[in-house]
Amino acid sequence: MQTIADPNRLQKLILDEKQKNKIIGFVPTMGYLHKGHLQLLRTARSQCDILVLSIFVNPTQFGKNEDLGRYPKNIDADMELAEREKVDIVFFPSTKTMYPDNFSTYVEEKSISKLWCGAKRPGHFKGVATVVLKLFNIVQPDIAVFGEKDYQQSLIIRKMVKDFNMPIEILTCPIVRENDGLALSSRNTYLSPEERSCALLLKKALDYACDRFYKGVREADLIKSGMENILLNGNCARIDYIACVNNDTLEPKKILDSADRILLAVYIGKTRLIDNCQLP
Amino acid sequence: MQTIADPNRLQKLILDEKQKNKIIGFVPTMGYLHKGHLQLLRTARSQCDILVLSIFVNPTQFGKNEDLGRYPKNIDADMELAEREKVDIVFFPSTKTMYPDNFSTYVEEKSISKLWCGAKRPGHFKGVATVVLKLFNIVQPDIAVFGEKDYQQSLIIRKMVKDFNMPIEILTCPIVRENDGLALSSRNTYLSPEERSCALLLKKALDYACDRFYKGVREADLIKSGMENILLNGNCARIDYIACVNNDTLEPKKILDSADRILLAVYIGKTRLIDNCQLP
Repeated sequence: MQTIADPNRLQKLILDEKQKNKIIGFVPTMGYLHKGHLQLLRTARSQCDILVLSIFVNPTQFGKNEDLGRYPKNIDADMELAEREKVDIVFFPSTKTMYPDNFSTYVEEKSISKLWCGAKRPGHFKGVATVVLKLFNIVQPDIAVFGEKDYQQSLIIRKMVKDFNMPIEILTCPIVRENDGLALSSRNTYLSPEERSCALLLKKALDYACDRFYKGVREADLIKSGMENILLNGNCARIDYIACVNNDTLEPKKILDSADRILLAVYIGKTRLIDNCQLP
Repeated sequence: MQTIADPNRLQKLILDEKQKNKIIGFVPTMGYLHKGHLQLLRTARSQCDILVLSIFVNPTQFGKNEDLGRYPKNIDADMELAEREKVDIVFFPSTKTMYPDNFSTYVEEKSISKLWCGAKRPGHFKGVATVVLKLFNIVQPDIAVFGEKDYQQSLIIRKMVKDFNMPIEILTCPIVRENDGLALSSRNTYLSPEERSCALLLKKALDYACDRFYKGVREADLIKSGMENILLNGNCARIDYIACVNNDTLEPKKILDSADRILLAVYIGKTRLIDNCQLP
């Protein structure tokens, strides 16, 4: 396994490999890898010749009062996990290399990214789209793999790739959860033991929604108010949004259909967690 | 010479050729080719194995009240010229293919593109950057060639390529002029005979600026007011802007140095013409 910090060096190396007909697989991350990331790496590994993992805490996707400064890091553990997953190249650039002082060009998706997390975190998806475009141009992947916990993000990346005619196949992997149901996230590390218990309410609310739908309830408002009750019951969570949406457009729905999706963002203390599920 | 309208077909064909180590050269145009375009094609031709010319009148770079609807077209003449310049592939996509109904992702350069033509034509450079990114992703060029008449555009493209880590070399060609000095532009076709004479004032004003600088004048305001006099003298031109700027940043300058640049946008009747020159 090689670690490369210089974008130009990585790009040259990859273009050489592509010349030899190698399939490039790519998993972009902000590091502090967990089993969700490992699932992405395994999915990519099984479909490519050269597997590239990027570790870059992207400042442009954090809002002013968000957790950029305290985002968790453990590069040694990440390297060990990457090695174990047979990653070929870890791309670990500095912020200065990715965003030199006079950096001035951005990507903006103007439809899906205005909804939900986009509305709550202005500029977030612009930062995501911009860094992913940069990473795609550096790594030149044939396949890139994203997690469905960030479901809205995965749709925006797909949209960018389609709108910009990029020759890249985007794959997504289902959410990986702890045994008790909590969706894996690097941000779970922020939670105190009490908050960790409270965080289980997200999955509980999503399970409730699926169960109600399964039993025949179709009215989004009914399902949402039941979810609200569950989330607010413990007096430990603050709802950022609950959204019942079309699975492809993320437009809100009044009457739910099979394969629609429920999206959830909830503050547990100062930690903002997201989760989602597709209706049966 | 092949003509291809389908982006996916072209992209596949190019990726196959790149696999065979072929160097791809690219000249993006809006068609109605003139000798300026031919110079771009020759420059690209001399440095590549496969030369791609795109002809696409890009709607997203036109303002609401601009000349999108009447932009000149002559596809038969363009094809003949392309053939003569040994173009291998003409990419001639439909607007619907480039911008399907739900298109929603854009590129925005936020520094250079806010100045001069960017300030006068809001959204123009966003449209340019977006379509050029799309074309670059479809054509996958190693080399792309732009004309210096659109000097600000060429800087923005260079900036996008650098900021987005695109493995593409951007070349520019000097302005090609008619014998009497008028910079070649597809839009010259809009000019009546009287307007055509009036349009010579642009080059006359730029020549005056270079001459004054050569003779030791360094104050931008002095040079600009002399240029204004020349442009307004015939009572046939309306100045959109005169800018004395740093050659790389396009920031305005009070005291001029060698290699600074003068940019000019002038309305002759309803036709907006641009021109520029670098100081000696």
